[in-house]
Amino acid sequence: MLVQGASIIPRMSAQLLNDCFLRACLRQPTPHTPVWLMRQAGRYLPEYRATREKAGNSFMGLATNVQYATEVTLQPLERFPLDAAILFSDILTVPDAMGLGLSFGAGEGPRFARPVRDEAAVAALQLPDLNRLRYVFDAVASIRRALLTRDEHGREVARVPLIGFSGSPWTLACYMVEGGGSSDYRVVKTMLYARPDLLHRILDVNARAVTAYLNAQVDAGAQALMVFDSWGGVLADAAFRRFSLDYTRRVLAGLQREKDGRRIPLIVFTKGGGPWLEDLADCGADVVGLDWTMNLGRARAAVGDRVALQGNLDPMVLFAPPEAVAQEAVAALDAFGPPQRADGRWDGHVFNLGHGINQHTPPEHVSALVEAVHSHSRRQRSAR
Amino acid sequence: MLVQGASIIPRMSAQLLNDCFLRACLRQPTPHTPVWLMRQAGRYLPEYRATREKAGNSFMGLATNVQYATEVTLQPLERFPLDAAILFSDILTVPDAMGLGLSFGAGEGPRFARPVRDEAAVAALQLPDLNRLRYVFDAVASIRRALLTRDEHGREVARVPLIGFSGSPWTLACYMVEGGGSSDYRVVKTMLYARPDLLHRILDVNARAVTAYLNAQVDAGAQALMVFDSWGGVLADAAFRRFSLDYTRRVLAGLQREKDGRRIPLIVFTKGGGPWLEDLADCGADVVGLDWTMNLGRARAAVGDRVALQGNLDPMVLFAPPEAVAQEAVAALDAFGPPQRADGRWDGHVFNLGHGINQHTPPEHVSALVEAVHSHSRRQRSAR
Repeated sequence: MLVQGASIIPRMSAQLLNDCFLRACLRQPTPHTPVWLMRQAGRYLPEYRATREKAGNSFMGLATNVQYATEVTLQPLERFPLDAAILFSDILTVPDAMGLGLSFGAGEGPRFARPVRDEAAVAALQLPDLNRLRYVFDAVASIRRALLTRDEHGREVARVPLIGFSGSPWTLACYMVEGGGSSDYRVVKTMLYARPDLLHRILDVNARAVTAYLNAQVDAGAQALMVFDSWGGVLADAAFRRFSLDYTRRVLAGLQREKDGRRIPLIVFTKGGGPWLEDLADCGADVVGLDWTMNLGRARAAVGDRVALQGNLDPMVLFAPPEAVAQEAVAALDAFGPPQRADGRWDGHVFNLGHGINQHTPPEHVSALVEAVHSHSRRQRSAR
Repeated sequence: MLVQGASIIPRMSAQLLNDCFLRACLRQPTPHTPVWLMRQAGRYLPEYRATREKAGNSFMGLATNVQYATEVTLQPLERFPLDAAILFSDILTVPDAMGLGLSFGAGEGPRFARPVRDEAAVAALQLPDLNRLRYVFDAVASIRRALLTRDEHGREVARVPLIGFSGSPWTLACYMVEGGGSSDYRVVKTMLYARPDLLHRILDVNARAVTAYLNAQVDAGAQALMVFDSWGGVLADAAFRRFSLDYTRRVLAGLQREKDGRRIPLIVFTKGGGPWLEDLADCGADVVGLDWTMNLGRARAAVGDRVALQGNLDPMVLFAPPEAVAQEAVAALDAFGPPQRADGRWDGHVFNLGHGINQHTPPEHVSALVEAVHSHSRRQRSAR
C-alpha cells in the first residue's frame, strides 16, 4: 500500500501525478486517452474477494468499513495503470440512509426491506440525515490519503483523481418502489402512469438528497462526480424526459463545480440512453457516458463541443483472448478518432466499458485492454 | 367461433373485410390507424389460460396442436376489434426443428436441451426438414379458414390479415448458444469475439432456415411476415451490423414479396434498435417496429418515406386506469402525427406496443387502448 509514507492529514491540494482523466473530461489536451472501468474494484479480482471475505462476505460490510473500502478502491490501481479511482460504494446508499433497509442477499441484487409503494410511505419519505452517510465521506477522505505518493522530486502528489458517485433520482426511485431489481419495472411504472404525483414527490426528495450527498462527497475530497442513471433507458421517450432527465438536471444544477481552484467534472451515464444523447449533452454534465450500443464517432459528431464522452466497450469483449481485446479497444479509439480536431481544439474521450465489468472477467484481459488504450491513443496523437 | 359457416377449403383469395393493417404497412391511405399487439394471444386472457389448461398447461402443447393454436389466435379478436391476427407460435420453432430440443419450464423461459457451444456442435448444425414444422403451416392455413366470415352481401371475406413470423438469425443464435435466456449473453458474445467464424456458420444456417420457414408460411397463407430481432439491441454497434443486421437483410432478400396478387409486407423489429433506425430503414423491410424508448415523430422524420413504422407504447402503460391508457395512446398518435403528409402522400403507422403485452395486464385496459387508437386516429384524419 502507498499510504504508509503519507501524512495523516490529507493534502487535498496535492498536485496530481496523472490528471489525464480530469483533463479529458474538460476537453483539454492529454498525452493519451485516460481509461478507468465501471466496477473496477470488484469480484473479478481475487484480492477483492479476499477483502470481502474479511468483511464477512457482505457488500455493505465492505462499503461501510473505511479501511476495507479504501483497500478495495486501490486494488485495481495496483494491478493496472488506470487513470482514475472510483469510490467503492453502492448507488443505493441514499435510500438506505432514508431508512428503507438496504441489504444484498447472497448472489442476488439489492433489496429494500421497506419499499415505498403507497401514499403513506411516499408522504413519510424524508431527506436523509447526512450523518448516516458519514462512512461514505470518511471513505472518500481515506482514499484520497491512500492515493498520495511522492513524485521523482520527493514531493507529495496524488496518483490519480478520485471519482465520487450516486444513483440518479429515477434509478433510486426504481429500487425504492420495486423493493429491488426488476425485469419489467411494473410496480414503479404503474405508479408513473397511474399516480405520477406520488412518483414526482419521491423524485423531488431524491433529487434534493442526491445533491446534498454529492456535494458532501466533494467536501470530503471527490474530484469528479458521476450520476448513474442505470435504469433511465427503460423509460418511454416522454417519460424519460419528465421522470429521469428533469431530475438529473436538477441535481447537476445544485452541485458545486469547483473546489480548491479545480473544476469538478460531472459525468452522467444513462444505460440505454442512446435515444436521448442530444438531450443528455445539454443536461448540465461535462461528460456523457455511453453504453456499448452507441457508435463513438457518430456520438461525437452528435454532441459536438458540448460535452466529452465516456465509454463504451461491451464488457463481454473482455472474455475474448487478449489480442482480440486489444483489437476491439483500437476499434473503439478509432471510431472516436484522434481527439484533437482539425481546428486544433480538443474533444474529450474517457475510455471505459459500456457497463460494469463482469465478475467472471479474467484480470489479465483487463491488462491487455488498458495497455492497448494507452499505447494506441498515444499513436493516434503522434500520427497527427 | 366464426369458423362454422366457412368452407373447409380455405379461400386464400377471399377479400379482406379490413385491410387497414396491410395498407398502413405499405404506406397507403387508411380510415384509421390499425392496431394489433405483440403477444396479443396470451396469458393475460382467461380464455387463453383455459385453452392452455386443455393442452396440459404446455406452451408447445398449444403451439403444435392446430386446433388449439387456431383457437388462441382468434381469442383476442373476439374481444377487441384488432386489425390483424398473428400466428400463435414461438420464435424458436426453427432451432427446435434442427433437433436442439426446445422446452418451456413452468414459469421459466425457453430452454434447449442441446445447446450449440463447440466446434463439433456448430459443424453438425443443419437446415431443418420443413416437415418437422408442418404443424406451423397447418396452423397458418387453419387460422386463415377461421378468419373467414360473410360480409353484408353474404360474400365470404376474411376479417383481418394474418401475420406469420420467426426469430431473426441472431436472436435464434442467442438462444441456441446460450441454451436459454440470459442476462448478459456471455456465452454467445464470447463466441462472437473469440470465435466469430463459428457464430457466422450458425447465422448462415439460421438465415437460410428462417428464409425457407417464412416462405413456407406465406405458401400456407400468411399475409405479412415479421422478423423478431428480440436481442439485436444487446450488441455493440459494429457487432450489430455484422452479426444481426446483415443476416436479417439476407433473410428479407430471400422472401417472396407477393402472393395471389397481393404484396406481403415485411416487418422487422429490433428491441433496443434505436441506434440503428436509419440502417433498419434500409434493410429491405416495409415496416420497422420500434420499442417504447423511441419518439414516433422523430423516428418518422428519420425514416422519411423509406418504411412505415410499427409501435410503440410501453406495455406498462396498460397497468394505468383506462383513461390514462387512452391518454397515452392519444399522445403516441399525436407524436406520429396525421399520417397524410402535407404533399398529400401517406406515411404508414401500425399501432402496437413497444414489446409483448405483459401477462398481468387487465384485458379491459386493452379495450380502452384499441378504442382510443381507432377513435383518435379517425379524428386526426377528419381534422385535416
